[in-house]
Amino acid sequence: MKIAVIGCGYWGPNLIRNFVQSNKIEELTCCDLDQKRLDRMKSLYPSVKLASNYEELLQKPDLDSVAIATPVKTHYPIAKEFLSEGKHVFIEKPLTHSFDTALELVKLAEEKQKVLMVGHTFEYTAAVNKIKDIVDSGEIGKILYISCTRVNLGLFQPDINVIWDLAPHDISIILYILGEAPVSVNSQGRAHFKAGIEDVATTTLNFKDGVIAFIHNSWLDPNKIRRTTIVGTKKMLVYDDIEPQEKIKIFDKGVDVPPYYDTFAEFHLSYRYGDIHSPRIEDYEPLKKECDHFLTCIQNGVSPLSDGYSGVRVVSILEAASKSLRLSGRSVQTQGLKLLNKKSKNNGNGFLMASSWR
Amino acid sequence: MKIAVIGCGYWGPNLIRNFVQSNKIEELTCCDLDQKRLDRMKSLYPSVKLASNYEELLQKPDLDSVAIATPVKTHYPIAKEFLSEGKHVFIEKPLTHSFDTALELVKLAEEKQKVLMVGHTFEYTAAVNKIKDIVDSGEIGKILYISCTRVNLGLFQPDINVIWDLAPHDISIILYILGEAPVSVNSQGRAHFKAGIEDVATTTLNFKDGVIAFIHNSWLDPNKIRRTTIVGTKKMLVYDDIEPQEKIKIFDKGVDVPPYYDTFAEFHLSYRYGDIHSPRIEDYEPLKKECDHFLTCIQNGVSPLSDGYSGVRVVSILEAASKSLRLSGRSVQTQGLKLLNKKSKNNGNGFLMASSWR
Amino acid sequence: MKIAVIGCGYWGPNLIRNFVQSNKIEELTCCDLDQKRLDRMKSLYPSVKLASNYEELLQKPDLDSVAIATPVKTHYPIAKEFLSEGKHVFIEKPLTHSFDTALELVKLAEEKQKVLMVGHTFEYTAAVNKIKDIVDSGEIGKILYISCTRVNLGLFQPDINVIWDLAPHDISIILYILGEAPVSVNSQGRAHFKAGIEDVATTTLNFKDGVIAFIHNSWLDPNKIRRTTIVGTKKMLVYDDIEPQEKIKIFDKGVDVPPYYDTFAEFHLSYRYGDIHSPRIEDYEPLKKECDHFLTCIQNGVSPLSDGYSGVRVVSILEAASKSLRLSGRSVQTQGLKLLNKKSKNNGNGFLMASSWR
Amino acid sequence: MKIAVIGCGYWGPNLIRNFVQSNKIEELTCCDLDQKRLDRMKSLYPSVKLASNYEELLQKPDLDSVAIATPVKTHYPIAKEFLSEGKHVFIEKPLTHSFDTALELVKLAEEKQKVLMVGHTFEYTAAVNKIKDIVDSGEIGKILYISCTRVNLGLFQPDINVIWDLAPHDISIILYILGEAPVSVNSQGRAHFKAGIEDVATTTLNFKDGVIAFIHNSWLDPNKIRRTTIVGTKKMLVYDDIEPQEKIKIFDKGVDVPPYYDTFAEFHLSYRYGDIHSPRIEDYEPLKKECDHFLTCIQNGVSPLSDGYSGVRVVSILEAASKSLRLSGRSVQTQGLKLLNKKSKNNGNGFLMASSWR
Repeated sequence: MKIAVIGCGYWGPNLIRNFVQSNKIEELTCCDLDQKRLDRMKSLYPSVKLASNYEELLQKPDLDSVAIATPVKTHYPIAKEFLSEGKHVFIEKPLTHSFDTALELVKLAEEKQKVLMVGHTFEYTAAVNKIKDIVDSGEIGKILYISCTRVNLGLFQPDINVIWDLAPHDISIILYILGEAPVSVNSQGRAHFKAGIEDVATTTLNFKDGVIAFIHNSWLDPNKIRRTTIVGTKKMLVYDDIEPQEKIKIFDKGVDVPPYYDTFAEFHLSYRYGDIHSPRIEDYEPLKKECDHFLTCIQNGVSPLSDGYSGVRVVSILEAASKSLRLSGRSVQTQGLKLLNKKSKNNGNGFLMASSWR
Repeated sequence: MKIAVIGCGYWGPNLIRNFVQSNKIEELTCCDLDQKRLDRMKSLYPSVKLASNYEELLQKPDLDSVAIATPVKTHYPIAKEFLSEGKHVFIEKPLTHSFDTALELVKLAEEKQKVLMVGHTFEYTAAVNKIKDIVDSGEIGKILYISCTRVNLGLFQPDINVIWDLAPHDISIILYILGEAPVSVNSQGRAHFKAGIEDVATTTLNFKDGVIAFIHNSWLDPNKIRRTTIVGTKKMLVYDDIEPQEKIKIFDKGVDVPPYYDTFAEFHLSYRYGDIHSPRIEDYEPLKKECDHFLTCIQNGVSPLSDGYSGVRVVSILEAASKSLRLSGRSVQTQGLKLLNKKSKNNGNGFLMASSWR
Repeated sequence: MKIAVIGCGYWGPNLIRNFVQSNKIEELTCCDLDQKRLDRMKSLYPSVKLASNYEELLQKPDLDSVAIATPVKTHYPIAKEFLSEGKHVFIEKPLTHSFDTALELVKLAEEKQKVLMVGHTFEYTAAVNKIKDIVDSGEIGKILYISCTRVNLGLFQPDINVIWDLAPHDISIILYILGEAPVSVNSQGRAHFKAGIEDVATTTLNFKDGVIAFIHNSWLDPNKIRRTTIVGTKKMLVYDDIEPQEKIKIFDKGVDVPPYYDTFAEFHLSYRYGDIHSPRIEDYEPLKKECDHFLTCIQNGVSPLSDGYSGVRVVSILEAASKSLRLSGRSVQTQGLKLLNKKSKNNGNGFLMASSWR
Repeated sequence: MKIAVIGCGYWGPNLIRNFVQSNKIEELTCCDLDQKRLDRMKSLYPSVKLASNYEELLQKPDLDSVAIATPVKTHYPIAKEFLSEGKHVFIEKPLTHSFDTALELVKLAEEKQKVLMVGHTFEYTAAVNKIKDIVDSGEIGKILYISCTRVNLGLFQPDINVIWDLAPHDISIILYILGEAPVSVNSQGRAHFKAGIEDVATTTLNFKDGVIAFIHNSWLDPNKIRRTTIVGTKKMLVYDDIEPQEKIKIFDKGVDVPPYYDTFAEFHLSYRYGDIHSPRIEDYEPLKKECDHFLTCIQNGVSPLSDGYSGVRVVSILEAASKSLRLSGRSVQTQGLKLLNKKSKNNGNGFLMASSWR
């Protein structure tokens, strides 16, 4: 297969490295407006071809697919052109900058029967897949809430705020684990350095039947924290991505509710403090698995785990969060919820696709 | 001085232990409705007197003061009776269950010229006082935001939610450090085990000129976390109360904004990664200092650091948070803001009292 | 029962507190040469009796037992006098300052049929007992080695070096777990502040059939570390006594040796990296359990878990370590090894007593 | 310059990667007996040349230097041949398998006036260089002792024990910091899996005037620990190489000795507990710096920081440790101590070379 990576700035080189090492790729083209970035890529990987603008690739008939790692606002126009030309498209998270454009890409991909995949990398980590297995096995019980912290002294993005930059990871993890999209979103944050670009924020996702998820993101925290706490009726699980050895800990801790109790009498809960278990997590580069999954989906004509709908769901939530920020934290409904929870038939992660596209 | 501690349940015994060991106290009466608790106190401290209801103490002419550690809803009626009788009153946090009742107690204490103090214990810790000094010295620069996490598998309170239980600590620390009350409050949470009693919540305090504080509280987290992150324009500070040796770390990290920049050109921030410094913190029991402060204020006729106004401010914020919870996280103005920020003359912690009461 | 605690300095007050709270004790006498210490004890525990020298207690006919918490060199003469008078004796670790004196006390206790117990506190912790159970269950496999680190910026003892101060804990834990005494001991250390009083040292215990234990002790380490690593053929266990929540971790890690291999071919080991499990440890004060065990042994006429022989074994190893220090680390045989490994009949911890004494 | 890397197994590829990326290298030859390793190198770095045995490289006239990363016992014969042919030689640690062979290589390099460098990588880390600066500044005071722990579940080496595998790092760090070689060495360990190949050991280095260093190494520890504690008369320093953010911590802790005291009176020390400071450490790959240093030394005709004498010193200590192991931990003099402490003129790290070779 022949692929082009568009955008060789911050993230693109990681995609290039993985596609270069893939035995499914026979030709890789690096595309960037900046000749210096192209020269750098060539020096690292002498076998790559170069292109100084993506338009010249549109007419390349033997190009199978593109991977887009450009600024978020350009995802939609670039992807649209390549999908229109019948290319398979991989887009870095978030899929696009708005619900409408995201949905339009999904529709276009379905119409063209091409793979549209979004780079929700954490869905390809061994840790998140292990958590998914644990949750699905019922060991945790019914999930009550999820709390995520993803902060560090991080690079400010020029065009998107900290929620659009960091929360896609948290949101995609939460949706993957719960297999459900939230009904509404609240978000509160502040832009301290650049007007309109919030650098710290807390976002709340409200699901039906009382499940809630909290996401705290910051570009201004001295400590790097990447922690997800999942509280269930039976057990509690903490996923700490910074921890080298014990990324997942399952706590046999919790609250035991008496089977029934006299409403006039005092309400008594008992607390359970038990063992802690840390399952071994396989060690691999998730991006390698993600890139390979994209290529495999093209070969087999199947929908990826993090398909376009997955991208739409995340963008819908990001858009609602942005709206809530402008409304002083007021609750905002997520768009297209019905669509969001429509079940796809073949990706097996709780969401089933709206229609099989092949 | 003669003191009575009313309520010998969970927290009262800590007050009793400290007052028993104080050389300012010549007589201590333990008061509880439950005879078993009274017997237990007598066995631990044979010198104490006992009382099975607080009413009998109201008429005790030589009683100087009471310390109230009963359920929150009873703080107001009990305190009101003792203040009316001209006793000095110490109340465990939060001061009362509503802004109106809290303010009424403050007015009554002023009228009676008696000390009214609330048990915001953290204002008496060496760590928080060290942080206050550091912030006031200008080392951190202007504070941009504060983020607090106070979670663990905690005992459910029968009558108050997790915000009223845990956030008073965070709020009193934040207000003490900033010397300012917030304009509005947002809060989002869920009650998973008992209707109306939220067991997990995130609260946001919005201050004027863009400062924001985030507070995450839970009774359902497998890890005990008590962390406060203060991000300033010059440095960042993390206060981790669980850490035995390095409770405070000051990070010479941050974002350097160029003095001016062409608005048409790209916005460039530079990042600073520097040394980390952990000042030595004195080792003492804050409750001992708090109890002694109450007695000293009585002796000297001065207003305590955590005076009634301090209590009112915290209660006002808690009440706003509760209201926001009922409004799906909508922003709620804090009551009596003008009063809240009125400056007192003698307590030296940024807030000055509404009027000197002696 | 009536008991006297001799020595109210650093450790004695902990014994006093526990005996005061015991319902098995009707009268407790505090004994110290320093009147100020006695006054302090009286102010903390008004019910205690006082004695300004231990000789006056020797003739007290209704005194059942004494607990000795004086400087190490005085353990032997004081204990000898009380045993001679037919009192049960508890001695803080180490039992005495030499093998010969330690053994003499054991013989005397046997002759007088009195309880002689040494304060090897860690044998009464929930963690060490849990480890003992795990090891005995065979889960760890055969133990290959044990490595202990017990360091901090610690108070220098005026009369004993860091090995005699800290290593008794490590040695008693190791012997309790292995159920076996070492054949020989090596020790290397230095005295930086007071001639002859080593403040840092490493001691190695050599057991038969290749088991080895390493003990590193220091009074001069900036970090407080109390870690014991037990490496077995099947699993590895780490006991970190500083850790509040996960004191014991069992690692399903190890080396798998092929069942047989051609000695001419390359030697291949495979490595196993598996789950980590942290069992819940009960939460209680070990000293309370220890004090109660002493009183129970008196009541029931049975030998304590940490009996005199246990004390002799530890002293024998300490003495060998001191000798090795003087011989530049040369290997020194432990004295009385045969005796050390004689099996007692009733204490159930792998060592059986030389003779039942009642 | 043209270089060959001999040995493309475990460590060689790291050298190859760094030399390939160096702009000082115009031709790199990979040499290994195993064709599969050569093919692998060619696939990673298409520009490299290949050689299936090192003998064919001996006669290559334009080859400037070789880097040897073969099993330890082969270091000496291979290096000897290349030095004899007038090539500059870099050897992975330890330099050779014995003091005599190591010294012979040094003499040969001096005679041939060629660079002989040993890969003591840690001398090229930012952290160790920072520590060296701190110690040399006098901030720590006079060093009293150094304690090193370097353990993990590590790959067994087929031909060398855990001391020869791991301790060269600790020893080279200790010698670099102290600028002095030890007088004698003690070592105690056990071989649990392969006769004669110790998998766990503790080694003690005894310096003149009472300084001592402890090194604990294991291939069988479930936790990866790389910690060096340096205790000085003024401050204490901990270097934790696992820590991502605070690799070095300086503790203003210590023991204050009174200026004089009556020897008949009690000996009183006071303890100082102060601030903790963690200096920022530059972030770079030490191996890159090491490889570049080798090439720079060739270009400038100067002796490297980790020159042959540095290699001899480490090997002398390893040899003494091995001898001590066979003597049940008895103290063994280091060979050639006088030579070891001879000062070189130009490498500026405390050791001065025996003779300037150019």
